[in-house]
Parts: sequence; structure tokens; C-alpha cells
Amino acid sequence: MADVALVPWEQNAERAPEGVRAVVYDGEGEPPAEAADAVLYVVPYGRGQRLDVMAGMPRLRAVQLLTAGYEHALAALPDGVALHNGRGLHDASTAEHAVALMLAAQRELPRWALDQTARRWAPHYTRSLAGSRVLIVGHGSIGAAIERRLLPFEIEVVKVARRARPEQGVHPVADLPRLLPGADAVVLVAPHTPETEGLIGARELALLPDDALVVNVGRGPLLDTGALLAEKGRVRAALDVTDPEPLPADHPLWDAPGVLVTPHVAGGSAAFYPRARRFVDAQLRRWAAGEPLANEVRAGG
Amino acid sequence: MADVALVPWEQNAERAPEGVRAVVYDGEGEPPAEAADAVLYVVPYGRGQRLDVMAGMPRLRAVQLLTAGYEHALAALPDGVALHNGRGLHDASTAEHAVALMLAAQRELPRWALDQTARRWAPHYTRSLAGSRVLIVGHGSIGAAIERRLLPFEIEVVKVARRARPEQGVHPVADLPRLLPGADAVVLVAPHTPETEGLIGARELALLPDDALVVNVGRGPLLDTGALLAEKGRVRAALDVTDPEPLPADHPLWDAPGVLVTPHVAGGSAAFYPRARRFVDAQLRRWAAGEPLANEVRAGG
Repeated sequence: MADVALVPWEQNAERAPEGVRAVVYDGEGEPPAEAADAVLYVVPYGRGQRLDVMAGMPRLRAVQLLTAGYEHALAALPDGVALHNGRGLHDASTAEHAVALMLAAQRELPRWALDQTARRWAPHYTRSLAGSRVLIVGHGSIGAAIERRLLPFEIEVVKVARRARPEQGVHPVADLPRLLPGADAVVLVAPHTPETEGLIGARELALLPDDALVVNVGRGPLLDTGALLAEKGRVRAALDVTDPEPLPADHPLWDAPGVLVTPHVAGGSAAFYPRARRFVDAQLRRWAAGEPLANEVRAGG
Repeated sequence: MADVALVPWEQNAERAPEGVRAVVYDGEGEPPAEAADAVLYVVPYGRGQRLDVMAGMPRLRAVQLLTAGYEHALAALPDGVALHNGRGLHDASTAEHAVALMLAAQRELPRWALDQTARRWAPHYTRSLAGSRVLIVGHGSIGAAIERRLLPFEIEVVKVARRARPEQGVHPVADLPRLLPGADAVVLVAPHTPETEGLIGARELALLPDDALVVNVGRGPLLDTGALLAEKGRVRAALDVTDPEPLPADHPLWDAPGVLVTPHVAGGSAAFYPRARRFVDAQLRRWAAGEPLANEVRAGG
């Protein structure tokens, strides 16, 4: 008898390998009756992940998330069930948005959008990305994806991670005070941990040259919002994540000078879906072949 | 006695080689008295280039423009004076803006800018650049600069130029009808000639798939504005150049669905200035050494 897997997309069901019976559950409403037999549950992607439904899956052995973050799932995970995350699936989308934010800030795309609404043709010279030195803070797979995309823009990339990796030219985060005064832009893509909270605060912002740009596609609390506001536009920012998040309508960040905000959309673009579907296909093939699934973050029992 | 050269920037005057006396004229007001002895005139960059002042330079032997276009200067050029253009100086700036326009269109940056003005946090999934097939029409130095910047975005680039160059994978423009149905985006970066006027018209737009994106950083008349409007948003566009240009306040392109407009600012960013100053330095060194100047477009007498 084939193992039942709950998958979020019809395409995965169509391409399921022999030995796996893939049943679609997209997270809307209650799971199908087959959930009672499910051994593998691929949690549908979206805001409000349906983790509660695992209570109705007594035969469950493995859960696959499509997000990189998995802390939220640990509490709901039944004993003995393995957990796998979606590390890497959002890299292309997030890296693309990071570059989009940098170009938007340098080439003043928000201004042109507002001018278009006002039917106003008013060209002027802008900043550029070319010729700048960019610090990428957090050099995991998304940081590397951002670096690859930035390099052809005639810029210099300086890589910073928790620990130095001299053979890859990666500086330790302790070097930030020495590196910030020479940076035209700083891209934050580190995870949110006690160590990284407030990584860029008043002291770090003060070290940046006038008109430098801070880009945050990591997590809101990496950057101290109050300290950024206190800069009053001396240092600019392009933020896909904020602290607090979502940003309340009356928050001063919305119209702070030199600040550009997008509402946490870096990872959520069309670039994600083909990658996520291919990854689910590959996990089902591994399951059918009796191989270990990729991206395990908690072992089963 | 040193040869007098009129240069637009103080930096060029400071770094002038022995044998050249570089005098600054930035285009504001009338040229300095030394213009009467000038043998080389570097025309200051900006809207409204001062070509009329050549009439007061009886010893002039060479003119250097900082624009790639030079047709406008031919009529004003005295007999026997050589003309040199600024080919290449705008490549980095223009290529960067082309990518900025593509990312803005795919990742909906204008929407987020308007939402920010309205203090509205309303995330939703967007298109992406990753995974798309991009036609670059006009594969000179700017086209190649756009290609270099696009390739790391996990896309496929298809190159199109006036003539086929099979060894470089460049298709002839005659292949467009065959290539357009498979394109997710088309970037226009060709010059404006009788051959390229209306290159993308009703017939070509009709061949593009739904939701394709046309980007124009070349010249407005390459794209038939009326034909684009007739598509009513089925094909989207991101345009730095328009026809007519500047776009009058009452023109329907301003609020056409799926159309993003920037006011001919692709070449005019900070990326231009260091490159232009280095180029003028190099031209002065060539002059002092008795070598031919680069970028000659009309020989002297």
C-alpha cells in the first residue's frame, strides 16, 4: 500500500513517484479524509500555516515546511515526528528584492512613481549603485545570492558573518566598527537571534558616512528603529522588514526622510513557486526511494 | 606655450598633463577669456549643450562631447574641427536603470511607494525576474552591460541586433516575430534610426504573451505608443524614454494600466561623473602625448 503524503499543489500530486499517494491539501478549510493515513505532511505555504491539523494525523512521521524559519512549528510537532524546513527556497526571491530595494533607493524609483501619479515629467540626476562599496551582513545562502547579483553592477562587496572565514574573504561581525565608515550601503540578511538583535543601533549608524543606505531583508529587530529615526535622514534606509511589524499606520517610519518601506514581500514572489514545487517533488522521490529527506531540522523518533 | 583646453570640471584642470593648460568652463554664462586660444573644447554635460560658443574659438581643432549622440553637434561644428563623442560613458548608468525598471515592474515597487505614502501595510505575492526569458534588442555596449547585470538573476537572455552574429549568439532583428512569443520581457536599447522607428508596433506587441513586459531605455520612437495603449494592459511596459518626450501632462500613457514611466533619467546618474572625468583626463593625456584622441566621430582637417 502506498504511503499517503499531503502536498499543497496539484502539480506535486500529478508527478508523485510510485509508492507515494500524494493528496492535495492547500490549507483552505479542513484536510481531506486521507489525512488520517498521512505519513508525510507538506505544510501549505502562506500566512497562518495550518499546523493544528497535525493532531488529526496519527500515522505522521515527517513534516515539511516551505519556510526557512521553523521555530514556530516545534511546539505543535507531535513526539517522534521529524521536521524539515524550506531553507534555500526563498533565496532567489529575497536576493532579487534586496537588489530591487537598493536600486529603488539609489535611482529614486519611489519619486518617479509619485511623479507619474501627478503626471509630472521632472528629470534630475540621481545617485547610482555603480562605484559603491556594499557590506553584506549575514553571508549564508541568501547573502551569497545577493552578492552574485550585485557584483556585475561595478561595485565592491565586503562580506560579514558571525565568524571570520578568511579563505572566503568573510569578515567577523566584530569588524563592523572598522568597516562601517567605508561603506556606502549595508545589507542586513542575518537571522534574528539574541546576538543579532539591535546589530545596527545608534553607535553603528553613527559610524556610517552621510547618505549611506541601510537595507534590511533579514528581520526587523536587526536594525534599531528608534536609532534610525534619530538619524533624521542622514543615513537612508530601504526596509522590507521592520520593528514593529506590521508597521502600524501611525508609526513615524512611514514618512521618515530617506526611508523606503516594502511590507515583508522579499521572499514571496513568483520565483518561489517553481523552486518549492521542484523541492517537494524531490522530497517525495527521496521518500519513495527510502532515502533521508533533505533539510532535516529535527529528527524523528 | 601650452595648448589651451576648455574642460567642464575643476578635477580635470587639477590633473591636466604637462603641455596642456586646462581652463574650466561649466556651461554657465559666457566662456572665460582663454576660450579665444582654446584648441580643444570639452562641451559641458547637461541639457542645453553650449555649442554656440565655438564661434568664439578661432583656434579650435577638436571638440569632445560627453554624450553618445553627436548628430546635434555636426551643424554647429566649424570646418576642419574634429568631433569626438562620449560613447560608453553612460553604459553603467543606463544598464543599471534598465535593471531597476525591470525589478520595479516585477516586484511592484510603484505600488509599495504609493502604499507607503498612504501608510498602508498590505503585502501580497508579486511577479519575479527569476525564471524569465529576456530579449535584449540592440546588443551594443549598453546591451552587453545590461546582459552582464541580468544573468545572475537566474534568467535566460536572448540577444537581438540589426545583424546576426552567430558566434556571439546574437539573432538578427528579422527573427523577432519568431522570438517574441517566447519572451517574458523585451528590453529596447537600440539607437533611433529610420530602421528602428516603430520596431515594436501593434504586430510585435500582439506576438508577446499575456503579461509580458516591454522595457525601453533606448529612444521613445522604438516603441509605438498608440499600439502599446491599445493593448490596455495585456502587455506591460517600463519606459524611461517615451514618444512624445517629454510626456505632456494630459497624455494617456501616464495612467495606462501596467505602464511605469521614468523621465529619461537612465543615463544621468552619479555613475556617469567619475567615468566622464576619467575619460576627459585620458583624452588630455593623449592630446599632450600627440596621440589620436579616442571616440572620433568626424575627422578634423
